[in-house]
Amino acid sequence: MSLAKEVLTSPPKGVRDFLPDDVQKRNYVTGVIKEVYESYGFLPLETPAYERLDTLLGKYGEEGDQLLFKILHRGQPLVQGVREAAEFLKTEGAIVVGRSGETAPGAEKYLSDLGLRYDLTVPLARVYAEYQARLPAIFKRYQIQPVWRADTPGKGRFREFYQCDVDVIGSESRLVEAEVCAAVSECLTRLGFDRFTLRLNHRALLRTLVEAAGISVEHESDAIVAIDKLDKITPEEVKAELVEKKGIAPESAEKLLTFARLPNLEALARELGEKVATPIADLQSILEHLKGTPAEGRVAFDVSLARGLGYYTGAIFEIKVADLAGSLGGGGRYDGLIGMFLGKNVPACGFSLGLERILVVMEERKMYPPRLSVAQVLLAAADPSHMSRAFALAAELRRAGLRVDFLPKNEKPGKLRQLADQRGLPSAVWLDEKGELFAWFKHRPEERSRKIDIEELKQELQ
Amino acid sequence: MSLAKEVLTSPPKGVRDFLPDDVQKRNYVTGVIKEVYESYGFLPLETPAYERLDTLLGKYGEEGDQLLFKILHRGQPLVQGVREAAEFLKTEGAIVVGRSGETAPGAEKYLSDLGLRYDLTVPLARVYAEYQARLPAIFKRYQIQPVWRADTPGKGRFREFYQCDVDVIGSESRLVEAEVCAAVSECLTRLGFDRFTLRLNHRALLRTLVEAAGISVEHESDAIVAIDKLDKITPEEVKAELVEKKGIAPESAEKLLTFARLPNLEALARELGEKVATPIADLQSILEHLKGTPAEGRVAFDVSLARGLGYYTGAIFEIKVADLAGSLGGGGRYDGLIGMFLGKNVPACGFSLGLERILVVMEERKMYPPRLSVAQVLLAAADPSHMSRAFALAAELRRAGLRVDFLPKNEKPGKLRQLADQRGLPSAVWLDEKGELFAWFKHRPEERSRKIDIEELKQELQ
Repeated sequence: MSLAKEVLTSPPKGVRDFLPDDVQKRNYVTGVIKEVYESYGFLPLETPAYERLDTLLGKYGEEGDQLLFKILHRGQPLVQGVREAAEFLKTEGAIVVGRSGETAPGAEKYLSDLGLRYDLTVPLARVYAEYQARLPAIFKRYQIQPVWRADTPGKGRFREFYQCDVDVIGSESRLVEAEVCAAVSECLTRLGFDRFTLRLNHRALLRTLVEAAGISVEHESDAIVAIDKLDKITPEEVKAELVEKKGIAPESAEKLLTFARLPNLEALARELGEKVATPIADLQSILEHLKGTPAEGRVAFDVSLARGLGYYTGAIFEIKVADLAGSLGGGGRYDGLIGMFLGKNVPACGFSLGLERILVVMEERKMYPPRLSVAQVLLAAADPSHMSRAFALAAELRRAGLRVDFLPKNEKPGKLRQLADQRGLPSAVWLDEKGELFAWFKHRPEERSRKIDIEELKQELQ
Repeated sequence: MSLAKEVLTSPPKGVRDFLPDDVQKRNYVTGVIKEVYESYGFLPLETPAYERLDTLLGKYGEEGDQLLFKILHRGQPLVQGVREAAEFLKTEGAIVVGRSGETAPGAEKYLSDLGLRYDLTVPLARVYAEYQARLPAIFKRYQIQPVWRADTPGKGRFREFYQCDVDVIGSESRLVEAEVCAAVSECLTRLGFDRFTLRLNHRALLRTLVEAAGISVEHESDAIVAIDKLDKITPEEVKAELVEKKGIAPESAEKLLTFARLPNLEALARELGEKVATPIADLQSILEHLKGTPAEGRVAFDVSLARGLGYYTGAIFEIKVADLAGSLGGGGRYDGLIGMFLGKNVPACGFSLGLERILVVMEERKMYPPRLSVAQVLLAAADPSHMSRAFALAAELRRAGLRVDFLPKNEKPGKLRQLADQRGLPSAVWLDEKGELFAWFKHRPEERSRKIDIEELKQELQ
């Protein structure tokens, strides 16, 4: 099977191949996250790569609907070209697919009824509705899987990327907020992040502030989105946006900005009194619970944190590090979403770590362990006549529990040392021209190589 | 957000949700396979869930092309209904999508230029062509990822399933055949499979037999497919298929069947002489190399093994167990495929284990370790007043390196023991009404519970 050379062999736009070094780094990070989530008693869940479009549509806002990757019906009949189309129209009735322009609403269902997973929360809601009777009453689950979004690719923005979600379903206790914050904080500290901030706010608090500023309910979203920008643009620019773009009264905008710059919970309580007592008590209780956990000393209340819009109903969180504009992850309480397929409210609270961003920061800061090699020793023969003895030796060393990368090609000792080093292996062993066994160990740079017997070799490598 | 109750919450047809118990079993099996592959020096590779359709089409035969899941263009304009379609046709030119009937060839490219990954070999060939300069000259890679096929779902046949592939690219040495056979045999023995057969045959041998039986080249595939059925139907039925359905001369069919029932390599060599000397030497050399490896004593030459058709060029293998009609995996040498994007031959040999079938057999034979729980202890309070102290205790135990499942809900001791047991946890710890610490250990059925202090608890759980 031989094809024309001009076939593109790069991965499609916006998605990536992960060569061994990449996979090893990714596995290292997801391995740590998994270990921590499991040490908190979270159980693993996996859902299919695609869902019914019905399950996905309308859950991520209008923009989300457009970013869904839809899967074409198998064997969907198509007729191409004007003449065939006209004929087909007469006989069959049809949908017409043009080459540019707008999508006719609803037409897509004839083409597709499946879409690729867009996040891990809607599938969780579906799973919870389907298997509720088999799941624990309080269901603590984690899920580390890729999601797909047909977004315009850009620096650090991909069409296929992993999310690492941890959620507790079925409990209203504020200990749950504390537990997910503690778990993600432990993930980050174990990965070597020594300075990060867990920003904390509350949806009910934000809504009260907007109301107290005299902003009407229909402007609530605009106001919250604008406040969220306070860490990127100046208060004057935020005010301009509120007044000029959104038509909010200047004095309301001013009042909201004053609230949004209050430094702590105490100041907010003084300023707004009874109206904010419940969310403030919530937040204080979460902060109190976090003492003694890996989140202690890293949590900062921030009244300007808004976390998009959608589905949050209580406390909201976000992880910030100094050298990244966005966040490493975020979450909060969302008591309305998980029950959507059941037609009732189900309490839920979770946190999602963004694997790709964590990897970017770890790469830039060189936070990976020295080298994540898979084998302990490269083994070969210097002469073709000893290859099968070398192969038998590999089997013997593996029986002794060693990880042996056998090279099915004879190579000179110098080349073998070089290959082992390139692959990050700490040693190389070979049968020389006379069939005698020699070894090189990276941690003994004073020896180029030495004659060794098998028992000695096993000991050296254990 | 509340939706109509009648929304379907089962996974789409042919794909599955994996609840925690399932994921734990799957992770256990893939973990063992990964560990073994790495102990043989294979390096991990991961490729995107979707590829360009150009990359995939024409690689899996006509049936394969039809089973590809195609992804719809984002924002592809659609017009629904006869009137809109007629209007659209006048102004834009268009493709018409009907509701039944045939697909107009080539029309799909206007709808889709991406398809979901169908196997792990074509992506490997693309990756090898793209990154050849950065990869080792002899590239030993493994890849464990899902693939998608729009097949009719059935018992044990899914539309999303995992493959566990191991391949060596760039070496013609027969040690490579031996190495992949040894590696998969070790995977299976470590998983607890004590009896399995590694069937072995050679494509060049099969072709020679067909020729020597006097069957023309255009009937070669038919003849090989028929021989492959000898383990399912009688020789008479195979002969009937060859003669009546395929129009092969009865005496040729008879001759082929005689060859196909020769018991071993020696008998074949005697019968066919010099013509089969090369493939027989190949197989003998592989058998010789396998001595002392985990495949020793499990390999059986089987002249009726054919392994489908496609791309194999040399030795072929397949794993059989007694209680499964199909195979647990298979592979072989395929020197023509990997180079297809480079326009040259690149030697390659690999083995693919079928995760789903391994899981089915392990489930039926109850081969999993007793219980794959994630946490060591369930921790809670019997009274709401002690909940936050219990939470702080969870943090303390985790700091000591323990895996603690905290329950954010007060429960009576009896219920806690029951919950721990249901979740497969070996112990439960709680603060009782008075705030005193009690513990239950599954391995001490004589005690219902006992008072314990924290240091004692840590020791008991270490």
